[in-house]
Amino acid sequence: MILEGNAAIGQSGGPTMVINASLVGAIEAAREVPQIRRLYGAVHGMDGVLHERFIDLFREDDELVEEIRYRPSAALGTSRIKPDETDLARAMEVFIAQDIRYFFYIGGDDSQSACHALSELAKSYDWEMNIIGIPKTIDNDLVITDVCPGFGSAARFAASAVQYVSCDAEAFGTCEVVEVMGRNAGWLTAATALGRNKPMDGPHLVYVPEVTVNPDKFLADCHQVYDAYGYLVIAVSEGFSFAESEVATTSEKVDEFGHARLGGVAEALADMVEEEIGVRCRFDRLGNMQRSFALTQSQIDLDIAYAVGDNAVRRACNGETDVMITIQRKSSDPFVFECETTSLSSVAGQTRYLPDEYINDEQNGVTEAYLEYARPLVVPREHYPLSLPNYPRFQRFSIEPKLEAYER
Amino acid sequence: MILEGNAAIGQSGGPTMVINASLVGAIEAAREVPQIRRLYGAVHGMDGVLHERFIDLFREDDELVEEIRYRPSAALGTSRIKPDETDLARAMEVFIAQDIRYFFYIGGDDSQSACHALSELAKSYDWEMNIIGIPKTIDNDLVITDVCPGFGSAARFAASAVQYVSCDAEAFGTCEVVEVMGRNAGWLTAATALGRNKPMDGPHLVYVPEVTVNPDKFLADCHQVYDAYGYLVIAVSEGFSFAESEVATTSEKVDEFGHARLGGVAEALADMVEEEIGVRCRFDRLGNMQRSFALTQSQIDLDIAYAVGDNAVRRACNGETDVMITIQRKSSDPFVFECETTSLSSVAGQTRYLPDEYINDEQNGVTEAYLEYARPLVVPREHYPLSLPNYPRFQRFSIEPKLEAYER
Repeated sequence: MILEGNAAIGQSGGPTMVINASLVGAIEAAREVPQIRRLYGAVHGMDGVLHERFIDLFREDDELVEEIRYRPSAALGTSRIKPDETDLARAMEVFIAQDIRYFFYIGGDDSQSACHALSELAKSYDWEMNIIGIPKTIDNDLVITDVCPGFGSAARFAASAVQYVSCDAEAFGTCEVVEVMGRNAGWLTAATALGRNKPMDGPHLVYVPEVTVNPDKFLADCHQVYDAYGYLVIAVSEGFSFAESEVATTSEKVDEFGHARLGGVAEALADMVEEEIGVRCRFDRLGNMQRSFALTQSQIDLDIAYAVGDNAVRRACNGETDVMITIQRKSSDPFVFECETTSLSSVAGQTRYLPDEYINDEQNGVTEAYLEYARPLVVPREHYPLSLPNYPRFQRFSIEPKLEAYER
Repeated sequence: MILEGNAAIGQSGGPTMVINASLVGAIEAAREVPQIRRLYGAVHGMDGVLHERFIDLFREDDELVEEIRYRPSAALGTSRIKPDETDLARAMEVFIAQDIRYFFYIGGDDSQSACHALSELAKSYDWEMNIIGIPKTIDNDLVITDVCPGFGSAARFAASAVQYVSCDAEAFGTCEVVEVMGRNAGWLTAATALGRNKPMDGPHLVYVPEVTVNPDKFLADCHQVYDAYGYLVIAVSEGFSFAESEVATTSEKVDEFGHARLGGVAEALADMVEEEIGVRCRFDRLGNMQRSFALTQSQIDLDIAYAVGDNAVRRACNGETDVMITIQRKSSDPFVFECETTSLSSVAGQTRYLPDEYINDEQNGVTEAYLEYARPLVVPREHYPLSLPNYPRFQRFSIEPKLEAYER
């Protein structure tokens, strides 16, 4: 049976450099399938759904859509709200009122959880619709999929930044701590090792949240590196901790999910290293550039991101629902992949940590196995973006709301 | 009269993405002139001179030298020491002992001062030698020269970073403060405006150290932008200050020159904006990436940097001394320049501030005249560097010291 109606798509959580490639993959596929009458872009993700702030993506210009493919960060706007039961019920009312039969949500673990909850709810409302999660996160911490779209480009940025800052630290003969995003999983911090071509190159020490570090061992390792090379570069995840106590790194502020805002680990470690080694220790935080610095977009990452968007639409229109698209790696060199699926319930609430075989025995670096995993993911774009590109925005043709305003 | 002997060259102060292009320009020119017997690379700048730590640059492989041209940050190592009279006398003894007849120092204002002092000293020692300063600073604050090598690439990084981080802030609808290097002069912070193609693009507000800002006007401007565009991006120099009082931004630590270490202005302003606007305000510091992120090397900057190195050697061998090489812009489109000179005494101790005509009337942004000045300087490299390049280091063939060790 062909399920005909409208489709909605939204972007959620921290954006990436390639999240719009997934959006454009979905738009271009949706234009080709007969089941989808109109494709609604939810403005600011779930916020847009709840408040019926949708734009008509089929009315957007083809060429503009193609240009938006390369624009970093969520072109529809993103959201960090975690919908509760009231919100989910409202979303379902909106879907029904707008005859939305397909829903696609580009996001991380929280977004996949929301999709699963909506799938369940649709059944209880007896509203036939297909819901597919499109993976996205620079953290690369979704389970089952080989890689998360967004990771390869962020990895290329982090590896480049650490490589370059290492050259600067080496010129001075100083110490340097670079703080990389990653609350629980160290995939991105580990990627900084990709820029280390020779033992003397930084980063010499890499610390991921999966290991708790002994402070004495840490300082001994710092001494050893500094004595050997005359400078020292450390890459550390924001979620770093010492075995005996947490480095004081959390601010009293919380983010939109209620998580404590992280940050400050690099500064705290730099102070500690400076005091111990007796040489200036600087720090850098890669900050929001990690997910937006489009000059480091990876071609494979762009391709994967586009493919998951495209695949989600085609599968939903073939009747699949309550699944997330996954990437299956077929070979690494050349990098060949296929899109598969996994149930949303298998992904929701799960975190993929760096496996032990990717962390070295000393727990201060990565293994060759990790580098083999990650290396194919950080290839540059085939065509570098123009300098300081003039990125377009959607024209934003509004869809008329059908319901009373949502008062939350 | 042909002055024959050895030549020495050093790199000083904060490195840039193109400082090695100047070094390689000098090496390649020195190989062609008959006057220079050996070219000594001073390891860690003046430190290397004082301690007779020199490497023989003529013994380095041609191909390796050519590759080092593109390596960011000082390949010889850099130094922040400011030589005092005792140091300068020692340097002169080293020059005499090593038969150094030519000295080239790649650096900013402090380095030009050191070169001038050495020129004077050489006369009083009756040691015939030619000393030429090679300009370098991402701050672009040396007087007389149209532009300083290092600025164009740093400007391209800063403009790119702010453009990309703006996309991220827009996706969330948040506020964002980006902190850019610049203690006294706002050239680099101003360059972030180059990435603003449309009024809605960030950075919406740009604050340079040349203006002191009224806090009420500042907050009013923030409100106006946020109300108009639904997000707000501010670029600010680390040397930012309010009219009535300094934002608390200096740490108690000092750098190697005895300057208070700057930093923290972005965080302080972000807190202020967040409280006032009632929307999350994040901050990013561009940090050491500003002078090392080689993926944003500018072709013009690379060309200029190479030219000043080359020109310094040729002029010194033609008898010029006690001057700094300057850039004279002949046209902007296409960018055409010539190398000229100015006396070292005209440069030493001077700072080139952003002129009034480059700052807008509201004092919260730049003028079209500034953009016309800066735009030609940020063109990308003709050939993008490979992903995560395997940069070489010099082989470092040591020169035998001639004097007793220097005990300072």
